[in-house]
Amino acid sequence: MVVVGGGVIGLACADELVMAGHDVTVCDPRPGGGSTYAAAGMLAPGGEAWFGEEALLRLGIDSLARWPAFAASLAERSGHHLDLRSTGTVLVAADRDDLAEVHRACRLLDASGVRVEELDRRALRAAEPMLSGRVVGGALLPDDRHVNPRRVADALLAVLGDRVVRARATPEPDGVVLDDGSRLRAEVVVLATGATGMPHVRPVRGEAVRLRSRPSPARVLRARVHGERVYVVPRAHGELLIGATEEEHPADDGDPLPTLGGVARLLETARALIPGLATAELLEVVARDRPGSPDNGPLLGPVPGTGSARLVLAGGHHRGGVLLAPVTAATVRAHVDGLAVPPAAQAFNPQRFDRPNDTDRHTDRDTDRNEEPCA
Amino acid sequence: MVVVGGGVIGLACADELVMAGHDVTVCDPRPGGGSTYAAAGMLAPGGEAWFGEEALLRLGIDSLARWPAFAASLAERSGHHLDLRSTGTVLVAADRDDLAEVHRACRLLDASGVRVEELDRRALRAAEPMLSGRVVGGALLPDDRHVNPRRVADALLAVLGDRVVRARATPEPDGVVLDDGSRLRAEVVVLATGATGMPHVRPVRGEAVRLRSRPSPARVLRARVHGERVYVVPRAHGELLIGATEEEHPADDGDPLPTLGGVARLLETARALIPGLATAELLEVVARDRPGSPDNGPLLGPVPGTGSARLVLAGGHHRGGVLLAPVTAATVRAHVDGLAVPPAAQAFNPQRFDRPNDTDRHTDRDTDRNEEPCA
Repeated sequence: MVVVGGGVIGLACADELVMAGHDVTVCDPRPGGGSTYAAAGMLAPGGEAWFGEEALLRLGIDSLARWPAFAASLAERSGHHLDLRSTGTVLVAADRDDLAEVHRACRLLDASGVRVEELDRRALRAAEPMLSGRVVGGALLPDDRHVNPRRVADALLAVLGDRVVRARATPEPDGVVLDDGSRLRAEVVVLATGATGMPHVRPVRGEAVRLRSRPSPARVLRARVHGERVYVVPRAHGELLIGATEEEHPADDGDPLPTLGGVARLLETARALIPGLATAELLEVVARDRPGSPDNGPLLGPVPGTGSARLVLAGGHHRGGVLLAPVTAATVRAHVDGLAVPPAAQAFNPQRFDRPNDTDRHTDRDTDRNEEPCA
Repeated sequence: MVVVGGGVIGLACADELVMAGHDVTVCDPRPGGGSTYAAAGMLAPGGEAWFGEEALLRLGIDSLARWPAFAASLAERSGHHLDLRSTGTVLVAADRDDLAEVHRACRLLDASGVRVEELDRRALRAAEPMLSGRVVGGALLPDDRHVNPRRVADALLAVLGDRVVRARATPEPDGVVLDDGSRLRAEVVVLATGATGMPHVRPVRGEAVRLRSRPSPARVLRARVHGERVYVVPRAHGELLIGATEEEHPADDGDPLPTLGGVARLLETARALIPGLATAELLEVVARDRPGSPDNGPLLGPVPGTGSARLVLAGGHHRGGVLLAPVTAATVRAHVDGLAVPPAAQAFNPQRFDRPNDTDRHTDRDTDRNEEPCA
């Protein structure tokens, strides 16, 4: 079978299918070079939770539980260190309005069974002494983890070896056709092309900045700074990822490139949150398009093909691709092999978008879509 | 003879000496990779003028006059396009305090024979419609030029060909010794190593940002924005250079790397000056150490050597290396060949720092060293 797309999703699916005994080829002109390359790697189902997206929160909690075994197996087989950390997430509010949003998010998470410990200003600064003296409060989500997505992609590429072909592939009735006109026949084609080339998926541009700073925060910080959201993710060797802007772009808007305005906002917000970062070294500025879906949930499952090949979608993961890679791989494998789909993944069959009047999943949404409760 | 250092200064000196019939080798581990790589290429003697630095202003005016012939010869011989432009500099003030500084600079320049045309708010925005509506006034320096320093270095490297050796060289009594222990004998060694390895020279770190924006300003802008200084230099293909921070660093402070604080300040200041740049693509962030000298003037001429090789300094150009390259090359060649040194360069003999009580050159300084009058 062929997996089209070599980001963390396509590679995790391919690895799962190989381990299940299938003969797999992954096609991507630049494996690991898409949104995986810019991803923060926060394994934080609560950080992304919306009112009305309880199904997505359950999917994230399911996938988070799979991460330790997924990472251990991958690290063992590849010999790579993935920099998986279990230090939790600290939510931070810079003013009273920001704090109201943090409290609102905490109530939602608590109601969904996510462990939450509220932190007053003193406890917050004791936990993260680099925070500005002006922060007003926050919370700790002790069960969140994070990982370095570039290392995950490198490890998956290492275990997949020459099963990965550096070429663009397009599905056709009995397999895929490559850029050079050559064809790969396949009974199953898994489509994991990220922000482009997936039905129902649109690009949502994001910018992030990679820094080096010593000292560095100990935990992932997700902050609201006077309404601006920013996250700070510590990695090995004093590296930090600061992200991320979010901007809708037309699909034909060219390669994502960081903009002056987006990067300026990230840097200013990060500096307001952690004044000591002013002297941090700026290592890299990166922009990529996330794969956004109509309901923010991924598309996991078969769609009607046009020929003999079965087409299985693994896409639309928006800001959750790294977190959701293990459950996505398990779900795709279940669809391919006719096994039971993980219960948390059943709500994310792509067929939900082919029934235009079925909006039941969304009737419990009680908040404005453009306002994110959590950090 | 050997030129140690392959920045714009070392390369221009080597080219001049080759054209004068000398056998020249240039040694640099990364030619064109030092401060030349980050330089804005403003050929603007007035832009850098200080009260008390009339001698430096005269040197800049002399070198600016040499630029058209220098560039024409280099472009002709190399076949490279240097992107030399003669559109002048626009000085911009964002508030009344900024404007007082611009007016003060204009009086100094006018008194030194530099053409200056003051612009009121309306004339300023007519000249550069992308400027913020909040600017209060400025001036046009119509005789300033600018050039792309990376193209100048590439063109010089092309004409010098295999005379450039990619190795670090250290002067010794009868020539230089390279990193690999091999020796080049030379009767004359020209030392043009920039921010490190030059007597009397200290590193002054600078950060700059390269953008792409269409539309783009038509001219070089040198602005004061509520006391923050920023320049915007347009280049070919919609590229813009935004610079530059200035920060003293100890010489052993490691490779220059851009910092979050410095880059954030540049981006915010540029955006306040030209709101339309918010959507500009951020192409590159760069940091390099400028070669600062005790009196901001370059060191042009012989110093006592320790053996048979004569040692000629060509360094300490601070923020004026690109502007001063032609007059530096002519001055070095004059010292090597026993010709008359250009009159404007006579004040910049390195011996001035070996007479500790001779401070006559500076008695007319009547302003605070840390306050720059011009943009």
